[in-house]
Amino acid sequence: MLTVAVCLALLGCLQAQELRGHVSIILLGATGDLAKKYLWQGLFQLYLDEAGNGHHFSFHGAALTPPQQGQELMAKALETLSCPKDTMPSHCAELKEQFLQLSQYHQLRTAEDYQALSRHIEAHVQQEGLQEAGRIFYFSVPAFAYADIARHINSSCRPAPGAWLRVVLEKPFGHDYHSAQQLATELGSFFQEEEMFRVDHYLGKQAVAQILPFRDQNRQALDGLWNRHHVERVEIIMKETVDAEGRTSFYEEYGVIRDTLQNHLTELLMLIAMELPSDIGSSAAVLEHKLQAFRALRGLQKGSAVLGQYQTYSGQVRQELQKPGSFHSLTPTFAGVLVHMDNLRWEGVPFILTSGKALDERVGYVRIVFKNRAYCAQSEGHWAAEQSRCLPQQIVFYIGHGGLGHPAILVSRNLFRPSLPSQSWEEVEAQPGLRLFGRPLSDYYAFRPVREWDAYSFLLSQIFHCRKESFITTENLLASWVFWTPLLDSVAHEVPRIYPGGSENGHLLDFEFGGGQLSFTQQPLEQLVPGLASSPRPSDFRVLRAQYRESPLISAWPEELISKLASDIEATAQQAVRRFGKFHLALSGGSSPVALFQQLATGHFSFPWANTHLWLVDERCVPLSDPDSNFQGLQAHLLQHIRVPYYNIHPMPVHLHQRLCAEEDQGAQTYASEISALVANSSFDLVLLGMGIDGHTASLFPQSPTGLDGEQLVVLTKSPSRPHQRMSLSLPLINRAKKVAVLVMGRTKREITMLVSRVGHQPKKWPISGVLPRSGQLVWYMDYEAFLG
Amino acid sequence: MLTVAVCLALLGCLQAQELRGHVSIILLGATGDLAKKYLWQGLFQLYLDEAGNGHHFSFHGAALTPPQQGQELMAKALETLSCPKDTMPSHCAELKEQFLQLSQYHQLRTAEDYQALSRHIEAHVQQEGLQEAGRIFYFSVPAFAYADIARHINSSCRPAPGAWLRVVLEKPFGHDYHSAQQLATELGSFFQEEEMFRVDHYLGKQAVAQILPFRDQNRQALDGLWNRHHVERVEIIMKETVDAEGRTSFYEEYGVIRDTLQNHLTELLMLIAMELPSDIGSSAAVLEHKLQAFRALRGLQKGSAVLGQYQTYSGQVRQELQKPGSFHSLTPTFAGVLVHMDNLRWEGVPFILTSGKALDERVGYVRIVFKNRAYCAQSEGHWAAEQSRCLPQQIVFYIGHGGLGHPAILVSRNLFRPSLPSQSWEEVEAQPGLRLFGRPLSDYYAFRPVREWDAYSFLLSQIFHCRKESFITTENLLASWVFWTPLLDSVAHEVPRIYPGGSENGHLLDFEFGGGQLSFTQQPLEQLVPGLASSPRPSDFRVLRAQYRESPLISAWPEELISKLASDIEATAQQAVRRFGKFHLALSGGSSPVALFQQLATGHFSFPWANTHLWLVDERCVPLSDPDSNFQGLQAHLLQHIRVPYYNIHPMPVHLHQRLCAEEDQGAQTYASEISALVANSSFDLVLLGMGIDGHTASLFPQSPTGLDGEQLVVLTKSPSRPHQRMSLSLPLINRAKKVAVLVMGRTKREITMLVSRVGHQPKKWPISGVLPRSGQLVWYMDYEAFLG
Repeated sequence: MLTVAVCLALLGCLQAQELRGHVSIILLGATGDLAKKYLWQGLFQLYLDEAGNGHHFSFHGAALTPPQQGQELMAKALETLSCPKDTMPSHCAELKEQFLQLSQYHQLRTAEDYQALSRHIEAHVQQEGLQEAGRIFYFSVPAFAYADIARHINSSCRPAPGAWLRVVLEKPFGHDYHSAQQLATELGSFFQEEEMFRVDHYLGKQAVAQILPFRDQNRQALDGLWNRHHVERVEIIMKETVDAEGRTSFYEEYGVIRDTLQNHLTELLMLIAMELPSDIGSSAAVLEHKLQAFRALRGLQKGSAVLGQYQTYSGQVRQELQKPGSFHSLTPTFAGVLVHMDNLRWEGVPFILTSGKALDERVGYVRIVFKNRAYCAQSEGHWAAEQSRCLPQQIVFYIGHGGLGHPAILVSRNLFRPSLPSQSWEEVEAQPGLRLFGRPLSDYYAFRPVREWDAYSFLLSQIFHCRKESFITTENLLASWVFWTPLLDSVAHEVPRIYPGGSENGHLLDFEFGGGQLSFTQQPLEQLVPGLASSPRPSDFRVLRAQYRESPLISAWPEELISKLASDIEATAQQAVRRFGKFHLALSGGSSPVALFQQLATGHFSFPWANTHLWLVDERCVPLSDPDSNFQGLQAHLLQHIRVPYYNIHPMPVHLHQRLCAEEDQGAQTYASEISALVANSSFDLVLLGMGIDGHTASLFPQSPTGLDGEQLVVLTKSPSRPHQRMSLSLPLINRAKKVAVLVMGRTKREITMLVSRVGHQPKKWPISGVLPRSGQLVWYMDYEAFLG
Repeated sequence: MLTVAVCLALLGCLQAQELRGHVSIILLGATGDLAKKYLWQGLFQLYLDEAGNGHHFSFHGAALTPPQQGQELMAKALETLSCPKDTMPSHCAELKEQFLQLSQYHQLRTAEDYQALSRHIEAHVQQEGLQEAGRIFYFSVPAFAYADIARHINSSCRPAPGAWLRVVLEKPFGHDYHSAQQLATELGSFFQEEEMFRVDHYLGKQAVAQILPFRDQNRQALDGLWNRHHVERVEIIMKETVDAEGRTSFYEEYGVIRDTLQNHLTELLMLIAMELPSDIGSSAAVLEHKLQAFRALRGLQKGSAVLGQYQTYSGQVRQELQKPGSFHSLTPTFAGVLVHMDNLRWEGVPFILTSGKALDERVGYVRIVFKNRAYCAQSEGHWAAEQSRCLPQQIVFYIGHGGLGHPAILVSRNLFRPSLPSQSWEEVEAQPGLRLFGRPLSDYYAFRPVREWDAYSFLLSQIFHCRKESFITTENLLASWVFWTPLLDSVAHEVPRIYPGGSENGHLLDFEFGGGQLSFTQQPLEQLVPGLASSPRPSDFRVLRAQYRESPLISAWPEELISKLASDIEATAQQAVRRFGKFHLALSGGSSPVALFQQLATGHFSFPWANTHLWLVDERCVPLSDPDSNFQGLQAHLLQHIRVPYYNIHPMPVHLHQRLCAEEDQGAQTYASEISALVANSSFDLVLLGMGIDGHTASLFPQSPTGLDGEQLVVLTKSPSRPHQRMSLSLPLINRAKKVAVLVMGRTKREITMLVSRVGHQPKKWPISGVLPRSGQLVWYMDYEAFLG
């Protein structure tokens, strides 16, 4: 369906482009800031570029302001138009006069106003003896006005069939996934996908627009380099020195993530990370590959970001929004986010997205830092920039400002000499003393645009030519919100770190990452937002040792508890391998062990995995590849990070002969014989259990009598919750283990923890109470929330 | 057995150490270079340190020289003895005089000489009214003399029971694994393991001897850092400015790898890479952990090293060894080697070992470079050495010479403040202007020994105190040779790159790595060794397309062929996944596919592994974990590098109910039903086959009638070679595939390739001739050696 839609859209574009005739461009919000600063100038440029090519134009400024006053404001906005550098002043005046002749103000408030505009255009076209090619509506208005305007255009201002309609939309496109989808659905009821052009003006910036062409034209050099084996990190940075003063009413609602990361920086990320289509001229292929890259993004969590807020922000908000003196905003004005891609090309490569206001410099860039894969036999004094592979190797798409002051593409000379279109990019002249990213400018092949253009001029031209790849399709937009919304939700109540602003920030905003988590490098010196002190940290407490049901109990904050349990498991494993040559470990599924799996995968380098056999304590009767499968969780969080030999992994055979847990397939019996054959005396070295709020453990439920006693080692059981069918080790088998660890975490377990502490041996009522290894050891691991409430 | 032996050895040491009494030290080769330069001085130091502690000594210089002349030479060697810095000259003279009194020369040639020495010692001890504690024999003689001396000592010069014997051996300890083992066996027939002290004098150097104590005392800081998540690389470097002039008779036989890498640099590597024992004071634990680290070393291949030879070396050899003018040595005087450890702690971390003569500087160090896991929000100008995590983070064990000129331990200030024993290590005073490893000295916490000692003094003291951890046990030695011998064999006929020497080397010896291979960064400008031109490079040729048995044939040099086949497989996979959602690939075992597996694992980032099902074409009836198992090869070279879901992997069920390929276990039928159930129409998307020199393919052999026709999809067959029992896809099943690729490589296949090109459809005689997919495509992939001979 998608592909068909995109094809149709492009077909529409191509057909439309055949047509030469009259084009009307209606600028909604014609007297606003954006129009004054960029859009009128962009339209003037479009006129200069295209009028000579047989195109006819009329330009319609529109706003809610009454005609007289609007006309004046618009005239004022048009006064500042400038011609290209090499235009003679007299000729420039002439050109401007021509443009002004074609431009007219309209008040657009009611349906009638839109109808009148439409009639006006039709009359004008007819009068000039032209055919109407199409209409462009540029929405330079607040988002809340979109729906009304869209409705009016759709019902009263569409051109006659045969001519095209294009509407240009400016962000924000929603506030989160839900609102973006709502807005998209609403707009979709008025416009076809191919009629809509969502602007992300970053895509119009020259160094950004060049990313895909650069990757394409330098395929040969980049093919071997553009992957996790060679790329050390990618930095995608947009630093500003200005703050949000005067704009806090907008900013307070959006914050830095919605303002720049969800759109600009995400688009940059995609241009770098996406697989390169064989034909980058195909908008459809570019979009398809971009969406593929979105799907490879690893989900963000609270720990994926660090947030800051410049010190005077809350004061500005109080003043501008008339808030009480006690008001403290939680809106971040600085964010650093660590992004990972879960595909073979980028696995493990950190993509660092950073943006903020009131920082020490204004600069934007994408920096790809390559791994140093060389050893230089000569001491450093002798290294030559072009030859030494030990000097840093990087490629930078320099968007603008900063030390250079203009857009550029930099490639370290020890990498390769890049190929760039010579008519539009030229080498940067030497600037002795200028250092960029740790090296003198002379260390790079550095190119800059021959002619600098403004992003909006470029984008207007793209819209005119119906080139869709520089715009955000609905799918693209929603994919981005899918990615960002969970993070936005999870940090909504986070207290940002307060920073003084400018160069005084020092190292306060430096952050570092490890294990997929980001954190500020420095501990804050003082609590700058009073009254918002954070809750006690795990390290403030110590691991508690006690008894529970007459067995040892280990209790701690979650982090320590998991860490202790992982260490205990490793110690048990080491001991078993030393004594018996192998270690048989039976693991439970569910959410509590996930943190344990991650700890084992990333923190235990000496774990004897090669000699470890992994068994499942229980399994849901779903295919092993089902997200609900316990085995699937084990695979995702543990197996793929370690190296357990294939034949040491023993998933439960719940899926045989294309059926799930059919009695006649004897899956339970098969698993039992596998255990009997491989595990001496059917006595696991360690069984990890959990405890449900109904007192169940493994998949042995109070409501189901199976597996609590008898001879069977493995049983089929019924769970009260879906999927009902389960396979489980039986209680007698569990109690043969040399060691059983029960992990209980979270506040929801508090009640059952108290209850079970008091009951005797009543496995039919509380299966967990039947866990008592005959000659092995039982240890309870409970976090404070489960144990102390 | 091992542990017992080590325990006994240590027990021997401990018991012996109890005993205070007379110690005789016999220095064999007492007038040689090493003795003159280091050993007499070391013995003098030992005397100064220990004589006051109740120990009695006599020192016996020995050589083959007749007494009179030997006495004179020895006296000369002893003239240069020096006292510790703070000794008064008069007191020094007194001390030297005492030492000379205790020192005596002996000619040791015959058994009688040794008997006489033994009697002499006994008489002396008796005369002094002492008990004999033990005897130390220091072998400072060429290796060829070891056996004779050892025999004499063992038969004629052992101390009486109750006193200990220690023999100290200097490298070389053999030339490769075989000769080292021979020498070890021979020495083992004369001495107990605990009696032997093999010296690697690097282990006596102060910065080296401090590595384990440093790791131990800074456990808390290092625990989280000392692993693949944080370490970017480890450089283990020993650069010399001197060349081999005057020593070519030795050097020509050994070369740089045997001279420094196999011993010094390997020991350094082990000290860094080994797991840290909980008690580093336990020699047994240190040895055990070191041997474990040896076992984790990934095997070296030809591509693991780059070799160089300084330009004047061959001339020096011609002159010193009277070789003809046409002689060109292949002995390397420079080597760079890339070492990887296959364990979870170090997987993927490059250990770079480099050593060479005639380089630009004299320096030795171990440098651990940490990954930059930080983003610094402030521009570089503001970074502070102690705070910025974006400045380089490194730990350096600086062995000596170089810019510093003394041993040192350096830790970047942005890492942590190291803990070192304050009585023996002090902070280095500031040296403005001095830069080390890219940063000013002030960026480091830098420590140097309070008192510098010579390695031999330290080692002699260790021998005296029976501390074995600074010496190379037989196991340790052989483990090192096991590691280095394959590389030495494979590069024995390699032409080293010729380098001019000194700073003129420029970037000529720089090397870089990728995919486990090392190569020089620069192409050589000219062939400096005439007549030794290398064979044509694969890239000189192009992939050839032709026909073979009326099917397409692709022929090329191995590298291109594998690369083409891998690309073709990926293209087929992409297409299948696009059309059917999955890709069923059946793979053969054996050695040819290994390179293919590696290519797929490391070069194909877009391969749709998550949707790929992997099947086996055939399997040997051995457990899946057996090194002979085809599945094991697949696991080692492909599976562990990619992410195929567990349930998409389909090993052949050759091992059921603890039996191998028993008919009654119906493994073949089980596999056939699995195929029928999952593979639409039992038609694999791609089957990869090989061809044996007898014309077999899969495990379908000319001598065995099974599987060539009929209804069975999977069959049990008999191979003429071991293991005889096999499981194989049948020819009819193979011929149902959509595509069949036959990979044939190597000269040994030439004859069968010619033969099969001419025969018709005769599967009973040549099973490969029966491969003809009914409606699929057959493509032959042959390298030039197989196809053109």
